[in-house]
This record gives sequence, structure tokens and C-alpha cells, in this order.
Amino acid sequence: MNRNTHVVILAGGQGTRFWPISRQSRPKQFLSISDSGESLIACTARRVKSFCVKSQPWVVTNSMYKDLILEHVPGARLICEPTGRNTAPSIGLAAVHLLAEDPDAIMIVLPADHSVADEAKLVTTLNNAVALADAEDLLVTIGVEPTYANTGYGYIRRGARLAHSGFTVNRFFEKPNLERAQQYFESGNFYWNSGMFIWRAATILATIRDEMPELHLGLMKIAESIGTPNHDAVLAEIFPTLENISIDFGILEHARNCAVVASESFGWNDIGSWDAWAQHFEKDADGNLQHGDTLIIDSVNCVVNSEKRFTAVLGAEDLVVIDSPDALLVCPRSRVQDVRAIVEELKRRGRTQLV
Amino acid sequence: MNRNTHVVILAGGQGTRFWPISRQSRPKQFLSISDSGESLIACTARRVKSFCVKSQPWVVTNSMYKDLILEHVPGARLICEPTGRNTAPSIGLAAVHLLAEDPDAIMIVLPADHSVADEAKLVTTLNNAVALADAEDLLVTIGVEPTYANTGYGYIRRGARLAHSGFTVNRFFEKPNLERAQQYFESGNFYWNSGMFIWRAATILATIRDEMPELHLGLMKIAESIGTPNHDAVLAEIFPTLENISIDFGILEHARNCAVVASESFGWNDIGSWDAWAQHFEKDADGNLQHGDTLIIDSVNCVVNSEKRFTAVLGAEDLVVIDSPDALLVCPRSRVQDVRAIVEELKRRGRTQLV
Repeated sequence: MNRNTHVVILAGGQGTRFWPISRQSRPKQFLSISDSGESLIACTARRVKSFCVKSQPWVVTNSMYKDLILEHVPGARLICEPTGRNTAPSIGLAAVHLLAEDPDAIMIVLPADHSVADEAKLVTTLNNAVALADAEDLLVTIGVEPTYANTGYGYIRRGARLAHSGFTVNRFFEKPNLERAQQYFESGNFYWNSGMFIWRAATILATIRDEMPELHLGLMKIAESIGTPNHDAVLAEIFPTLENISIDFGILEHARNCAVVASESFGWNDIGSWDAWAQHFEKDADGNLQHGDTLIIDSVNCVVNSEKRFTAVLGAEDLVVIDSPDALLVCPRSRVQDVRAIVEELKRRGRTQLV
Repeated sequence: MNRNTHVVILAGGQGTRFWPISRQSRPKQFLSISDSGESLIACTARRVKSFCVKSQPWVVTNSMYKDLILEHVPGARLICEPTGRNTAPSIGLAAVHLLAEDPDAIMIVLPADHSVADEAKLVTTLNNAVALADAEDLLVTIGVEPTYANTGYGYIRRGARLAHSGFTVNRFFEKPNLERAQQYFESGNFYWNSGMFIWRAATILATIRDEMPELHLGLMKIAESIGTPNHDAVLAEIFPTLENISIDFGILEHARNCAVVASESFGWNDIGSWDAWAQHFEKDADGNLQHGDTLIIDSVNCVVNSEKRFTAVLGAEDLVVIDSPDALLVCPRSRVQDVRAIVEELKRRGRTQLV
């Protein structure tokens, strides 16, 4: 076990695709996808406990979620962003915090809201990734062997073989259409981009310096303020000016030191939509997921979640019905990726209570 | 104006196809289909005020709706059924009450829950029907000229021409499939069966005697008790034993003295389903009916009625979403006729609060 691993959980997102259950005040990562009631973020932290060697897991989040985070991940070390700026600034911010404590820090960056069925396999894979990132200055992504032609994930094409089940990254690919997804799936050289990253804090910062010098400059100013009374003020001033971009688009797609550690499927799911969420629960004989007080007649492959009221669905197919005390969502399964459009429209209309 | 006309409104139904808004405790006839808020039954009574010559309208109903009826039709003369037994017993019961007061009574039998756009045209048609029923011992049905191949209505094929825009009835037809409905519509000899009937009370009772002698026997026992202290007891004893059958199946399809008074379309709609209900309201540019606090994105021809909560519909087509405080309905427009199956299942499960 490497003594320098630090877990960094990214928990700033709002989970707008999980409206109306996920709200600004209680986003997706605090919801549960199992009958145990354990939240996604609590599961995420528990799964990687063995990597929290020097410190409790770090959680990068918005300050409005501070109390919720500490309730779900007791002892978490909070890095509060004054505003959400996507994963490149978030990860950079975590890196400077880690380096301030541990110059040899290896970061294990994990989204707060993914699910993993085979936790032991995940740990094995992360151990490989840590070994690889420890041996060389690589930016390691966990690549999951596809089990079908999923169009909701990014893909990674592997290059030359490395140690520890690793490969160089030939190229990152964005979410494909179905035809391309099918090709990727069949080629055998592609992995799902899990959004889990392992690297030295020093390595990612050096790459940020090369690829996004302005972001690096901002991060350095923030780094200097860590531990000083000025820190909050500096963070509040600098952070909102950092470019709003993902680590994938901003850094990984350009960097030459990317690697992928391949893993057999470990039941990973990014729970990116109600459709993906529904995969975690048992269905009735007609493929319908029924949660709550429901009556489903002559319907197939529907997802019906009713928190408080009685919900009847009649003669429907591939329909998603999500009820909450003050808002209701109805959409076909094929459109679950677009639920965020509802949240955007609600924001535009000033319906903040519903967002 | 004939001095012997009496209006009889049939208001015993529960309107199960209008679940979840229509409930046992407040059925469809008390709901409104217009922005004025006037209920269906109040509209029905108002439209035919000119025919209430000798008496206020009679309303045949279940005793549980007594107070509601008097609220919506002030002054109504109630005929309370101890239990619902369909239209043949209801109409027979009304006939014996009318005869007890007026041996020459002409009944104008109207469902409580239909809508009529052109009220003047309805009155003209009813005047024709009254004139025909007054001149001959005929059982007159109002037939509406079809404006399209509706599969939700019964049809009447006309025979020989009579006076007052009347025809003999060649045959009654049950709700057709689309192919047959198309044939009926194109033939020019078919009318929609409106369920509005005009006849002498004595004529319908004589026909009941010929076609359903047992029903007649029961009605005569009830008739004898009218005005006596025994009436309630006799009604409670006899009425539930009467055959549960519609006037169409039980009487009209067999009787030889049926006539139809034809009318151009007067915007008649039996409001038999959420689909039919929706025809009464303005749609958005994509054909969606939006009632209440709704957001409809990328959707066409949907019916969305949300009483209390915010409802978002995304990417749907021909979908009906009806929200109520304690229950929600989602079904395709093509299945609105089957909403009663939900009510039946709720009854079976003992969910009386939701029925």
C-alpha cells in the first residue's frame, strides 16, 4: 500500500439530470440508489477507505453543501469552491492543497455520484493505477471494459501496453452516436472513460502549467494563500476567474503523458440519468421499475418513482415518471439526458424554488 | 311550446374515466370544462330551462350526491336511487314519478355530463323531438350528424323520413372500430347516438312493459308507493333487484317505435374521456393542452392538467398527464377509454380514498 495516496472526491455538481428529485439544495450525490439508503457520496467514500492513508478523504464542493457533506462523509476534509468552475479548476485546487501537505501526494480523483457493484475489483484496479502513477509521471485514467455500446459515456482508445494493466492513451473520444458506440464496443481497444483519475499532484500541476498556463497562474496565487488569513479572500477573488472547463477537454486530450488502467467491468455506472439509475433496481415481469405507491397497467420498460402520492401509469412504454412533492417529471427514456433543459428553463423563469 | 315537457337529468354516474380528478365523492358531472367554472350538470340544466314548464328539472342520482346536486342545480327535484342500476331502471323510475303528477308528461332525458357548444341549435332540435313525440307514440333519440369517424360513440342508421326532421330508426349500432366508423361517417345515413331521449312517460313505460316485463313489474310496485310513507322502504327493497342494463340495450334496440331526430352538429360532446375533455380548450402551437403550472418541451399533442404542482413533460407525444393532490395519471391518448381499469383495480385493492 502506497503511503502517499489521497482520495479527492468531486462533489460540486448539482445533478440537474436528476430533477425533480435532485435539487440545488440536495443534489444527486446525497441521494441513495439502494434500499440501504446509503447515499452515493457515502458509498464513494466507503469504497476507497483503504486509500485514505495520510488523511481523511478530501471533498471538493460548494460551500452550500458543507453540512450535508460532513453528515454523509464524517471527517471529510472540505475544499470549498466559491462557485462551480468544472473539473479542471476543481482538480487543480485540490492538487495545490495536497501539495501543501505532502509533496509526494498521489491523488485519487473520484466523482461523488458513481456506483460500483464489485468494490474489491475497483480497489484492485485503483492499486494498479496508483502503482503506475507512482512509477512514472503519468496521468492515469481508469478505463472500464465496455459491456455494451453505451452512448452516454466518453471512450478511450488504448495505445501501447504499460505495466500494471496500463496502456498509453491513443486518444480520448467524446460520447459517440450509436453507430460509433457499436464500433468502439466491438473493436476491443476501447474503454469507457470512468472519470476516475490517479496521478501525482505535482504531475497534474506541471501539466496544467504546460497546457493551461492561466489556470496554473491562478492556482499558484491560491496556493500561496493557503494557511494564511487571506486565503478565503484570495480564493473568492481568483477562483471565479478561472476557465470553466473539464479536466478532459482542458488537459487530458492535449497531454502526452496520459495512460489508462484497464479494468474488467466492476459494475461501474456513472448514474448519469434516470435511465442509468433505474438499472440498479429490480424490475417487474414487464421490465417496469416501480418505486413507491404505484399501479402500472399494460405498460413495459417504464421507470416510475413516486415519493408521496399514488401514481397510475396505463398503456405506456419506455416512459419515465418521477414524482416529487412539488414537481413532476414525465419523459420517454430516450430523452432522460435532456432533463437538464427543464432545470435551465426553470432558472430562466426565476422558479428558484423548483431548481 | 308544449306545456307537458319535463326535463330529466341522469346524474348517477361516477365518471371513472375521469380519474383522478373525478372521484366517487365528486364525480365528473360536478366538474367544469370551461374557464367560467360552471359545472357540466349546471350547464345541462341551464340549457334546457325553457322546457321546464310545469316543474323544475328532475335529477335522477345517488343519494350521496343530493347536496351537490342542489348546489349545482338549485331547486332540482331529486329522484334518489338507492344504488346505481344503469339507465333502463333510472329512466323507468323517472317515468313513474312523472306520470304520478302528469299523465301527459313528455320526458326529455339528458345525461348530466355532456357539453353543447351551440345551445340555440340544441333547443331547436329538442323542440322538433318534442313535437314528434307529442304527435306519435315514438321513442325519439337525438341523432347528431357525425363530423368525423368517432369510435367512441354509438351510431344510429336512419330509416324512413318522418315529420319534424325525424326519421324512423333502421338500427342502433354499438361503438365501431375505426374502419366501420369511417363507413358510417361516409354513408350519410348515420348519426351519433347522443343519449338524449324524448318520449311520453306513458310510451316508455308501455314499451318497458312489452320488452322488460320484470322491470315493469318492479316499477309498478314502486309507483304504487309514491306519496305513501312506505315509498323509501319499497324503493330500497325493489330497486336493487331491477336488471342492471342500459335503456339502449334493454329497450331501444328491440322496440319498433324508435325514431331519431337529426340535428346538424351543435358542438355536442359526451366528454367521455380526457381526450374528449381536452377538445374544449385551446392548445399551444404544438397541439398541447396545458392546464395549471406546466412546462412542456419538445412535445406534441399532449394533455397536461396539473392542479397543484409543477409538471414538466419532455419529448412526449400524444400523452395524457393528469395530476391531482393525491393521485397522478399518465397514459397515452389512445388508452384514455381504459382509465376506468385503474379505478376498478383501486377498488379491488380497497384503496377507497383514491376511488
